[in-house]
Formats: sequence, C-alpha cells, structure tokens
Amino acid sequence: MKILIIGAGGTLGQAVVNELGARHEIVRAGRTHGDVRVDLRDAASVTAMFRDVGELDAVVCTAGKVPFAPLAELSEARYLEGLQDKLLGQVRLVEAGTPRLRDGGSFTLITGILTEQPIVAGACASMVNGAVEAFVRAAAIELPRGLRINAVSPNVLVESMEGYGPFFRGFEPVPAARAALAFSRSVEGRQTGQVYKVW
Amino acid sequence: MKILIIGAGGTLGQAVVNELGARHEIVRAGRTHGDVRVDLRDAASVTAMFRDVGELDAVVCTAGKVPFAPLAELSEARYLEGLQDKLLGQVRLVEAGTPRLRDGGSFTLITGILTEQPIVAGACASMVNGAVEAFVRAAAIELPRGLRINAVSPNVLVESMEGYGPFFRGFEPVPAARAALAFSRSVEGRQTGQVYKVW
Repeated sequence: MKILIIGAGGTLGQAVVNELGARHEIVRAGRTHGDVRVDLRDAASVTAMFRDVGELDAVVCTAGKVPFAPLAELSEARYLEGLQDKLLGQVRLVEAGTPRLRDGGSFTLITGILTEQPIVAGACASMVNGAVEAFVRAAAIELPRGLRINAVSPNVLVESMEGYGPFFRGFEPVPAARAALAFSRSVEGRQTGQVYKVW
Repeated sequence: MKILIIGAGGTLGQAVVNELGARHEIVRAGRTHGDVRVDLRDAASVTAMFRDVGELDAVVCTAGKVPFAPLAELSEARYLEGLQDKLLGQVRLVEAGTPRLRDGGSFTLITGILTEQPIVAGACASMVNGAVEAFVRAAAIELPRGLRINAVSPNVLVESMEGYGPFFRGFEPVPAARAALAFSRSVEGRQTGQVYKVW
C-alpha cells in the first residue's frame, strides 16, 4: 500500500511510520518537515498536498493542535483555533483526499482520551475530539467506493509525559508504538466508523 | 427555581415549559418569540439576554440549528454554520450564563441521537452533537460554585416525524413530553457531566 502520513515527524507519527513502513510505501507530510508540506488549517494547502502525492491507499493523520486553557479563559477565538486545526483540518483531509484514494482505501484520524475523560484546561480538546469521533461515525456511512474511515483515540503518550505529565496525573500513559498498532489495525483491517481506543 | 428556556417556542421547548412550568418560574427565550429574544450565533445577543433576565437557577437550551446535506456537498462554510449555531451558541450560553447562575445552578444543553447513530446527510449534525457532549463532560469539572452542566440527547421526536421521517427510517421516535423529562432530571437532580439519552 501507498500510505500518506500527516504529522509523520511527530512522536506518534514516527511510531506509525515505524509500524507501517516495514510493510508499505510511506509518504511523510508535515507542517515543517517531510516529503510534502501541509498546513491543515488551509484548504488550498491540503488540496496541493494531495495533488503532489498522487493516488493513495490510505491517509493517516497524527497531527492537529488544540489550545489548552482553563474554561473561564477559553474565548471564542481559541475554540475556533482548535476547531479550525484538529477538527476542520481533518475534515479537509477527507474532503480533498476522497478522490485520491483507491477503491477500498481508508482514512485514519486522530482524537484522544479527552473525549471521554476530561482534564482541567482541556475543554477545547474534548470538544474537538468529540466532534472528530462523531464525524468519523457519520462519514463512514456516506463515503463512496468502499472507502473507510476510523479514528484512533490514544491515552497520553509515555514519550509526552515530560511536557504533559502535570495535566495528566493518574492517567496511564501508553507508548507511541502501542498507539501505532491501532493505526495499523485501521489501515490494514477492514472495519469502518470505528474509534480505536488505546487506553 | 427561576429557569431560562432557550427555544421555548419550539416543539421540544414547549414540552419542557409544560414539564418544568408546573413547579417553577419560566422565562421563555427564542429567536423570534418569547419573553426575551436571542440569537445564539451572536455573543452580544446572548450577553444582552442574560442582562435582561437577571439571576437564574437553571439555563435550559432546546435550540440549535445544523445544516443537513450529503457528505460530498458539505462545504466548510456549512460545517461552520452548524458549529457557530448549535455548538458555539451553547458554549456562549455557558460562558455568559455562568456569572448569572446562583450557586448550584445548572446548564442543560441539547444534542441528539446522531452523535452515536448517524444518518445519511447528517455528518454536520453528528459532528456538532459529539462536540457538545464532550464539551459538557469537560466543562462539568471546571465550572465554579457547584454549578452543573448536562446534555439531553433525544431520538427523533414523534412530533417531528412529518418533516424528518424520511431521514430517520427505522428510528423509534419519542414524544417531546418524554424528552422533556430528561431536562427535568438534569435541572431538578444533582448530577453533572451527564448525557441523558432519550432513546
């Protein structure tokens, strides 16, 4: 398979490259690194990426930013930052990527444990993750030509605990390599409309 | 209790007024009808509403519009319509309403079955509902002064089947009066961070 991985230079993205790269051709995409550059917030940038990489069997996203701030400090502008990046950015991947995927191809998007298990200062992250997961379930029943779509919802990563640890006290961190297995399960399995929880 | 009901003139809103009005003081709000007018898409309108109605014990929302269209026809502008109305509109209620609620007061927001059970042409509705539900879980752990927040997720309403029936074949419609009970359970109970499913 030829697999496009957005966010391939990140902690999780590298683990997914390691997992899937052993068996498949990988195209790395990222905001600042990779074989092709993309800014998920910009529909034209997403469209240009798909034009550059040609036909694909799978699109994997391990990228998407959301602001973290106490509920009382989350302004409308900050919610929109998260919605424009991690939510609509991934929707843009589906929209622009659909005609580029071969029959039976797949999208695998990224959410996270905060959809169901909130933390202080994480209301925007929870909102965005919840939106992506429900979108995945809905898009799964409308995609054409046997195309599939799933999401992976990891717990906080072992590799991210140095920075994120204080926000995730008591959460059981998972290695990025374990989260990467869920991406393999989505890409190399046949299910659609699933949220694979890694926690 | 003094309870503000946004969308009080709608099918579900009227049922909630009937349920809660028997025991409590109700202030009706709506886009075109009611004791006070509000446009959820406009932060200034939401702020003005709360200034006009004074201190409250509960805020109930039964309003919020989302566009319905096939996945392939849902443009970014249409997703943003739904996000600005039913998602950020309800977030605005929480933001502007928090200082107006008495200690222990509650917000009860509206979502719907499409979060978990999608229909064709409902991807924006699913996305928005999923976002609201995750936001409710997250906001619940950060609201001050014992304030609570829940969501009600009804199935399609019996009273709406004439218009919506063709989109909801095989769904078991619920009477608005039954969905209204979940609003009572949220307002008059003590739980927080819950999604009460009426299906």
